[in-house]
Amino acid sequence: MKYDIVIIGGNPAGGAAAVAAKKLHKNKSVLIIRKEPQSLIPCGIPYVFGTLKNIDDNIKNIEPAKKLGIEFLIDEVLAINSENKCLTLKNNNEITFDKLIIATGSTPFSPPIKGNDLDGVYTIKKQIEYIKSIIQPLKNAENIVIVGAGFIGLEMSDELVKVCKKVTLIESMGSVLPLAFDSDMTIPVAEVLSKHGVQIRTNTMVDEILGDNGKVSGVKLKNGEVIKADKVILAIGYKPNTHLAQNSGIDIGIYGGIVSDEYLRTNKPDIFAVGDCVEHRDFFTRKQSKLMLASTAASEARIAGMNLFDLRVIRQTKGSIAIFSSSLHEISMGAAGLTEKQALDEGFDIIVGQSKGFDHHPAKLENTSVQKVKMIFSKSSGVILGAQITGGPSTGEMINILGLAIQKYMTAPELATMQYGTQPMLTAGPGDYPIVIAAMNAVAQTCHVSE
Amino acid sequence: MKYDIVIIGGNPAGGAAAVAAKKLHKNKSVLIIRKEPQSLIPCGIPYVFGTLKNIDDNIKNIEPAKKLGIEFLIDEVLAINSENKCLTLKNNNEITFDKLIIATGSTPFSPPIKGNDLDGVYTIKKQIEYIKSIIQPLKNAENIVIVGAGFIGLEMSDELVKVCKKVTLIESMGSVLPLAFDSDMTIPVAEVLSKHGVQIRTNTMVDEILGDNGKVSGVKLKNGEVIKADKVILAIGYKPNTHLAQNSGIDIGIYGGIVSDEYLRTNKPDIFAVGDCVEHRDFFTRKQSKLMLASTAASEARIAGMNLFDLRVIRQTKGSIAIFSSSLHEISMGAAGLTEKQALDEGFDIIVGQSKGFDHHPAKLENTSVQKVKMIFSKSSGVILGAQITGGPSTGEMINILGLAIQKYMTAPELATMQYGTQPMLTAGPGDYPIVIAAMNAVAQTCHVSE
Repeated sequence: MKYDIVIIGGNPAGGAAAVAAKKLHKNKSVLIIRKEPQSLIPCGIPYVFGTLKNIDDNIKNIEPAKKLGIEFLIDEVLAINSENKCLTLKNNNEITFDKLIIATGSTPFSPPIKGNDLDGVYTIKKQIEYIKSIIQPLKNAENIVIVGAGFIGLEMSDELVKVCKKVTLIESMGSVLPLAFDSDMTIPVAEVLSKHGVQIRTNTMVDEILGDNGKVSGVKLKNGEVIKADKVILAIGYKPNTHLAQNSGIDIGIYGGIVSDEYLRTNKPDIFAVGDCVEHRDFFTRKQSKLMLASTAASEARIAGMNLFDLRVIRQTKGSIAIFSSSLHEISMGAAGLTEKQALDEGFDIIVGQSKGFDHHPAKLENTSVQKVKMIFSKSSGVILGAQITGGPSTGEMINILGLAIQKYMTAPELATMQYGTQPMLTAGPGDYPIVIAAMNAVAQTCHVSE
Repeated sequence: MKYDIVIIGGNPAGGAAAVAAKKLHKNKSVLIIRKEPQSLIPCGIPYVFGTLKNIDDNIKNIEPAKKLGIEFLIDEVLAINSENKCLTLKNNNEITFDKLIIATGSTPFSPPIKGNDLDGVYTIKKQIEYIKSIIQPLKNAENIVIVGAGFIGLEMSDELVKVCKKVTLIESMGSVLPLAFDSDMTIPVAEVLSKHGVQIRTNTMVDEILGDNGKVSGVKLKNGEVIKADKVILAIGYKPNTHLAQNSGIDIGIYGGIVSDEYLRTNKPDIFAVGDCVEHRDFFTRKQSKLMLASTAASEARIAGMNLFDLRVIRQTKGSIAIFSSSLHEISMGAAGLTEKQALDEGFDIIVGQSKGFDHHPAKLENTSVQKVKMIFSKSSGVILGAQITGGPSTGEMINILGLAIQKYMTAPELATMQYGTQPMLTAGPGDYPIVIAAMNAVAQTCHVSE
């Protein structure tokens, strides 16, 4: 069989690449090959343990893609022959392609600590059967220890305390979400988690997972302390799935991801790679990064899909900004670009603008949340390098405003005088709009306009 | 008395100008002169009739401004002497200024129809005592007719049906919110209002307000039909307060607003004007516009405040984009820039990109709303001209993303490949992010990339 465009992997990156490719190349045949007939919405996985009553509610609907004319094949690709442009499959005959997009995703990283193979030690794999198999055991557990206070660790903690478990969260660094946020911004996040019963232990590492008859019984910390546990969730990151690419001579980078250029092309002609299996570059520092994020994956995948046959749609990845958001009980948070710490570590001379207000106006309206914004600017150029927000549910779209500001290299004076809309039930007030106020506070630190 | 900076008017425009001026010119004295000791948060006014239990919850807190060092004087300015740079006041001695900012706001426009002076005919004045005086009469009314289906008319309708009145909304054009939205986008908005009991009458004009012993008894439409009413609210717009400016020789524009340049300077040296009393210009067409919007007012006011003494902070108003949002019961809506109709009327050759999805992912999560996005692009340049959204409460910040995209002249391919963050509880999914999908659908209409 021959297809014009073949995508290996059907998660957000593969799916977005396929849709973009098909929309822009209507007459080309597009095939997605994936291992499972159904796949979970990856970001929705933590919610199947608490908020969502049924895991089937978190299955990605592929009907819209099929309606567009994208075909699906459930199979496993065993080898890529980049010379003949063909794929060897496990259960079907060979498939030849004109253009190939590798979107093989990532697998949880299991740290080399003693006891990581005990019964009751879980990772958050993006596989439907595996996730199904661990829901009930976790719901029945008495004491759960979650290792790693990144987004997955936090969302899992928050969901599991909703179903009344004793949950302890362990983080080696000094605060929760230490890679995306400065520690000052996550104080209210930790407070909310604690209030709802999550025991948070920062600056602490796991020395060993303890077992009893092959089953988890506890976690021993580096300081010797033992925390009782009948289940342990390891949430310390993912590693790119690159076995297939590597075996076919595709270049792999320093962090183990596939090397790709600004159009997501690999070193092999007509073979592209997108998503978690790719080694990203940071938007500002241009350094390789370990970032894995479904939305970034989807953005880059679209660039690949639009530029498969020629570079007529001039659009390249300028590097990853990493726009994160999450929501834990009554607090939401978002981050984009560099943190203050990262910017300083990288050698940027910076100015920080901050604001604190409310996400409705007047603040006496129901469901009003405190809204804090922190923005990091380059001192010399005034360009925004990063931003962090805590507040209510509007935080998710608000961080996308600042993500766009970063992409457009906007400056503090521009943001301080930007136009925006406000509405009592939906946003802060016109005089208090937090992005503008934080930017203005940054401008006031540099512009000694008059004496 | 002498102040470096004097602002006439203490609403969003005056307040934002004062704060920007003080933050950037710390050693300058700043005085706000306003008529009332307390002022309402203007956009919050509709909510004092329903959602907010107490009107005092909607009073603007001026303590943060005072803390910054801004002084307040409660008085009325009777005359501006632009030669001597001094103000004549009603109750105090003259005040001289170095820089003056006029922010005198606007007053509801009362159409010249018979019966507009009857007892029980109200407008939504931004005056605390007036608003206080009409709350109880409206709550006690049986039949309320609201004339004008702009934002104020809609929000008033929505609030008043919450306190169980029979509310009829009359609009001369063919749909609700006819200036900010294309009619196709407001179908669900009208459905929500109708569902909650608002009788909507479009394509209908009021011929006369009928009275009985000096009191409102009904509204007679142009077609002869009579609607019973014991209260009528006229919500058909506002006119700029320019009496003071006009009497001091400041130029007034074709729509009756003060003429100001890109730095909000009037024709008189050292006198600036901001907010509703100013005649705005449209961002794309450069035509004078009647726009009155607190957030636009505040943005422009900051530009004035930052550029009072010199133009060191290079930032001018590029024209008003008009970024609106509102929320009515379970639906929220936002609009920015030109509608499809306006763009066509102005002679733009356009492409429209649309998307329909959900504001959470998976959509089975609670409080999930249908989210529709419509984006209007220039066909030749690809630049975004306008956008409209209906959805859940995140619409308010989402339209600010598109407002920013307009300000940065972003194109459809740029928006189709933009980076953004997604999160199950806060946004659509990574593969379905509606701004990107709508932009991609526009790109697909123009980019015949391959056959």
